[in-house]
Amino acid sequence: MPDFTDHLRPADPQGPSILAQERAGSHVNIDQLAHHLLSRNDFLNRQKRILSILEPIPIFCKTNQLNMARPDRYHLGLARAKMLRRLSLKHGWDRDDYIMADYLMDEMGPYALQATMFATSIREQCNDEQKAFWLPKLENWEIIGCYGQTELGHGSNVKGIECQAKWEPQTKEFILHSPTITASKWWNGALGRTANHAIVVAQLLLPDSKTGKYKSYGPHQFIVQIRDMKTNKPLDGIVIGDIGPKYGYPGMDNGYMLFNQFRVPHSALLSKYSGVDPETGMYIKPENPAVVYGSLTFVRAQIIMHARLVLARAVTVAVRYLTIRRQFADRDSKDPNPPEQAVLDYPTVQIRILPLLATTFALHYTGEAMYKLYHGTREAIEKSGDFSRLAEMHAASSGLKSLCTTLAADGIETCRRAMGGHGFGGGSGMIALNNEYLSKPTVEGDNWMITQQTAAYLIKRMTEAVKNPKFTPTESVSAQFQEFLRSGPRQREFNVLGYEFEMVRAFKHRASYLSYQAYYDRVVRKKPWNSMMISLHRLSRAHSESLLVSNFYDAVFESTPNPPLDDATFDVIKTLFRLFALFTLDASASEFLLSRAITVEHLPFIISTIQELMAQVRPHAVRLVDAWSIPDYVLESALGSYDGDVYNRLFHKAHRENPLNQLTFNPDWRSEEIVMGEGEENAKRRLEALALGMKAHEQSGVVKSKL
Amino acid sequence: MPDFTDHLRPADPQGPSILAQERAGSHVNIDQLAHHLLSRNDFLNRQKRILSILEPIPIFCKTNQLNMARPDRYHLGLARAKMLRRLSLKHGWDRDDYIMADYLMDEMGPYALQATMFATSIREQCNDEQKAFWLPKLENWEIIGCYGQTELGHGSNVKGIECQAKWEPQTKEFILHSPTITASKWWNGALGRTANHAIVVAQLLLPDSKTGKYKSYGPHQFIVQIRDMKTNKPLDGIVIGDIGPKYGYPGMDNGYMLFNQFRVPHSALLSKYSGVDPETGMYIKPENPAVVYGSLTFVRAQIIMHARLVLARAVTVAVRYLTIRRQFADRDSKDPNPPEQAVLDYPTVQIRILPLLATTFALHYTGEAMYKLYHGTREAIEKSGDFSRLAEMHAASSGLKSLCTTLAADGIETCRRAMGGHGFGGGSGMIALNNEYLSKPTVEGDNWMITQQTAAYLIKRMTEAVKNPKFTPTESVSAQFQEFLRSGPRQREFNVLGYEFEMVRAFKHRASYLSYQAYYDRVVRKKPWNSMMISLHRLSRAHSESLLVSNFYDAVFESTPNPPLDDATFDVIKTLFRLFALFTLDASASEFLLSRAITVEHLPFIISTIQELMAQVRPHAVRLVDAWSIPDYVLESALGSYDGDVYNRLFHKAHRENPLNQLTFNPDWRSEEIVMGEGEENAKRRLEALALGMKAHEQSGVVKSKL
Repeated sequence: MPDFTDHLRPADPQGPSILAQERAGSHVNIDQLAHHLLSRNDFLNRQKRILSILEPIPIFCKTNQLNMARPDRYHLGLARAKMLRRLSLKHGWDRDDYIMADYLMDEMGPYALQATMFATSIREQCNDEQKAFWLPKLENWEIIGCYGQTELGHGSNVKGIECQAKWEPQTKEFILHSPTITASKWWNGALGRTANHAIVVAQLLLPDSKTGKYKSYGPHQFIVQIRDMKTNKPLDGIVIGDIGPKYGYPGMDNGYMLFNQFRVPHSALLSKYSGVDPETGMYIKPENPAVVYGSLTFVRAQIIMHARLVLARAVTVAVRYLTIRRQFADRDSKDPNPPEQAVLDYPTVQIRILPLLATTFALHYTGEAMYKLYHGTREAIEKSGDFSRLAEMHAASSGLKSLCTTLAADGIETCRRAMGGHGFGGGSGMIALNNEYLSKPTVEGDNWMITQQTAAYLIKRMTEAVKNPKFTPTESVSAQFQEFLRSGPRQREFNVLGYEFEMVRAFKHRASYLSYQAYYDRVVRKKPWNSMMISLHRLSRAHSESLLVSNFYDAVFESTPNPPLDDATFDVIKTLFRLFALFTLDASASEFLLSRAITVEHLPFIISTIQELMAQVRPHAVRLVDAWSIPDYVLESALGSYDGDVYNRLFHKAHRENPLNQLTFNPDWRSEEIVMGEGEENAKRRLEALALGMKAHEQSGVVKSKL
Repeated sequence: MPDFTDHLRPADPQGPSILAQERAGSHVNIDQLAHHLLSRNDFLNRQKRILSILEPIPIFCKTNQLNMARPDRYHLGLARAKMLRRLSLKHGWDRDDYIMADYLMDEMGPYALQATMFATSIREQCNDEQKAFWLPKLENWEIIGCYGQTELGHGSNVKGIECQAKWEPQTKEFILHSPTITASKWWNGALGRTANHAIVVAQLLLPDSKTGKYKSYGPHQFIVQIRDMKTNKPLDGIVIGDIGPKYGYPGMDNGYMLFNQFRVPHSALLSKYSGVDPETGMYIKPENPAVVYGSLTFVRAQIIMHARLVLARAVTVAVRYLTIRRQFADRDSKDPNPPEQAVLDYPTVQIRILPLLATTFALHYTGEAMYKLYHGTREAIEKSGDFSRLAEMHAASSGLKSLCTTLAADGIETCRRAMGGHGFGGGSGMIALNNEYLSKPTVEGDNWMITQQTAAYLIKRMTEAVKNPKFTPTESVSAQFQEFLRSGPRQREFNVLGYEFEMVRAFKHRASYLSYQAYYDRVVRKKPWNSMMISLHRLSRAHSESLLVSNFYDAVFESTPNPPLDDATFDVIKTLFRLFALFTLDASASEFLLSRAITVEHLPFIISTIQELMAQVRPHAVRLVDAWSIPDYVLESALGSYDGDVYNRLFHKAHRENPLNQLTFNPDWRSEEIVMGEGEENAKRRLEALALGMKAHEQSGVVKSKL
């Protein structure tokens, strides 16, 4: 409906002209930098191609998502998953195309496990016979799968899961059983309403050949049909459902599942590495499972690369909006009628946003380094059976997963708060981003648990270095520790304000110092592990920060940029390195002081240098986020769109697209009526049903007990 | 439907027996402590009384809220608001009863502005004639009001708002007009769909008596009827709507509003303090507006008290769940089959939760101190016209609002992450809490903006202290600065590990040191204000932390507890003080080092002392959170319920109450059908409409442009 607002425009200066000016004021070569950051797997071309397919399709429209009920979000999620599969066939997508579509759609949906955990288990854990049977069904999508490991009672501690798979020698079957409520599978994606097959992780229980007494051989994977292929109802003896709403993932049916003496054949146990002899009922032991570490590292390298794009997205929205947003004049201005300042010109806003912008680059170079490390290690294993770098890689990936997902999750919220009121609104595009990403500090290894693995590794290496100072190490961290033991304790005060490599040395020194402390406490003083946990977490963080800083340094000061960059552009990236290093140092200054890498006298200069570096980065901020090439379709943000037309977008999104504005309400407290014309009785009935959970409640009899 | 899960129970140990044991293992007197914390306004009895009224009423049932579409959340919000008003009359509730009902219902609804901002404006800004006209309408709820200040383009900087109120001498009317899109009112609660009247803040434009040229006299309040009293449609010349979904507040219709040359009478301008002479069109100047500061302080004292309950809620859930949750055995255990440990026994979990538990008490005592300061200052003003403490109070309340809401907002997320996977689920009860509270760091003064007010005040007082070291100050901070200038710069190394009052001195010393630096930079070196913003923010934080620590100290070491506490209980509170002080100190250790309040050698001992203090607090954690007396109805958390029956609640909530589980889906990608039996065509049409925003889109023609 046309009205007088159609002719209004925002007060000057207009967002688009501000962004045009910002872009004109910097010499950062956006195309080149985009190519530099996103050349892996032909990312940029692929993004363009897939985007042009998805965006015009109605069910991929995102504008109404925040208004929808959670059950509808699942319905839509399933429809989108089906459509993606059909598009994939139609356009002959490869795996990277599919991943790109998923990234652009920006919603974890009910087919997400099919090509990931479900497929991985079939490919990597099946013996040849099993693979021959299951792989074609998987690849033709005749079955829809999920992965059931986590339970209500156990997540991190996989060994503690309660679901049982008991071998019955007479029938040569496994009996799957959930002895308790806590044995219920829980959180497993695609299980709740979608999948008809599952990989079920259960304790393998075998009888002793003499006593017949059952003993557990630990968690093993079974492939199980869980729903009828025609009706999609759970098979007899299985209870399944969706666990309900969560912070994020409304389109995904995270599920629960319990078994009541449910029988599966011998062939259900995935038996590439281990198994049960069907004749003797004896356990067949697995070989060295170290290769598992390798793929875990690869997953974690992907997590870091994902983290950089997630953080870049939040920073893109923040930088564009905060450049456009104006509020308050400079209080020192001599101008009698001073203009309001761009919010990004406030140092108190810069200190929240610009170090995060630098962090996106730090994450990038470490993600690249991890890929390289992964491929190098894998090659060494495959070509010469050399497993020597596996432990280092695993330790690095654990600590980095923890640190990088924490940086990204916290960074999203920092960006949001910096955007003030509009950051809290749906037009920010931050709500879904935030809700989804908050799972990351927990999944794939809880961020406070897995750091123990990194710390344990560092203690081990430090112990070796102390014992054997002249041994030539293959692992870089051992060399670092030897160097520390030679000169470190005497070394004082790195010139972190003068030279970039001194920054790197300061980070390594602090990590080595904390490693030595941990070694001393654990190995010499025999302190209990539990009592050391807080310092072990700090140690892992220190080591991981040192990796971020040194990988960033190596990429920009020790290498020629590849793909190449103009000097002018490269100089800005070098400034980002300095900013990242000093900001990170300042945030944990007391550890640098304690290890005597810096002195108290340094502190004021560090803070003022950070401020100077931010002033150098500021003019390039818009172009730098442009280089991350995040399409408006992904941003789904009135505040962060490429064109900068913030206020028109915010206003028209509300004025034209909000379904609530289609109804007129009765505000009078004396009337039960809510929507005008609905009547009092109807309103009462409808709202009670809504509050009590609609039919679900009535059927289960909860309504009666409530009333 | 009964099934085999009905007979299952969680693995031992059971949650309820764990909590019973925890409660038996501590001598904290819960009832006494609850009374100590919550005696103000007879909180505990009131809570019990109002809860017994609300809880049985169906529309106050919260179980289905996370499943609902946003428009339905507003419908329910309006129905609840009406019901509260009716209950209020029926039971003769006073204002505190109403506030309690709001707190328990835990949802900001469309009547929330009626008794707050709308009523405050009428009561405090109307002249007698206006009050006589409007007050009865307000109090009888014949009109429903809202408060329209913030605009699309301006929030913090109220002086910058664009909405105009132009005085037309001929007609003696004001013409309300929105010249731009950014002049649109935005965010204003209850405006979007509900209110029929609004307080509108607009630039008062008056013509020069000679030239006739208009000049702005700044923002003023107008009372305006905005909707028809019968149809509730906006009046001609006004465009209004709801701004759409936000992080939180789904039941509230935050709105937008623009005026197109909309005329209101002379009496619309609220004229107690200022006004326009209707005959001459001359401006009537306001008196000293300093009293406004007073009520702002009161609002901020309430924010602190609210923050403590919000944080206590998150900590209650976390402490109860993490005591029950078990994961991993102690790796140093000699037991061949060691039991899993309670997660709260991990120092890495304690360090996240227990300092926050201590923070709830720190917030409490500072909230109490702020109320006392407010009443004392108000009395001084009313009895003897003594305005001298107003500035101190205002400065304290700004810095504390910023710090306390940051602590609570961050604390909620810290608690949630500490709960791992289940913390991410809807059963945590953290989703709504988190979503609502994330507005607090922005509203009532952005947390990074208002700290400038505190810093400016501190610089002013330091300047006076430097100039006039022997002057006897009335303000405690001036005395602190004089002391610092006398001995501070020479003072080194407070014995923060030995004595509680030395901890307080260390905090004051650091704040004084930073105040002196800021004074020196600004007053002596004439540094630009903008360039100092980061250090000014840090200064405000330092001062505010020093207030939290000294108020806590005064309450537990310098006073008899009132209401009284057993020694055994009081001792635990004293331990919480030590934990809060040292944890806060450690988090900003580098500032304490820089100001030489401590030395680097202190650091390792501070960390180990924190760990010892946590071990002392740990056995009392469950009873301490019990004392905060947060009812299960407010927690709405399977993880945090009083009885500790975590897993049964989580499971049955999903299994019995999730509406998604009532439907069976067609997972086959070759079929467009989603719900079994729905058919392909129906599914396609329905899902496209959902994605595109239902009718809203079709009506506005966006569908066509999309397709």
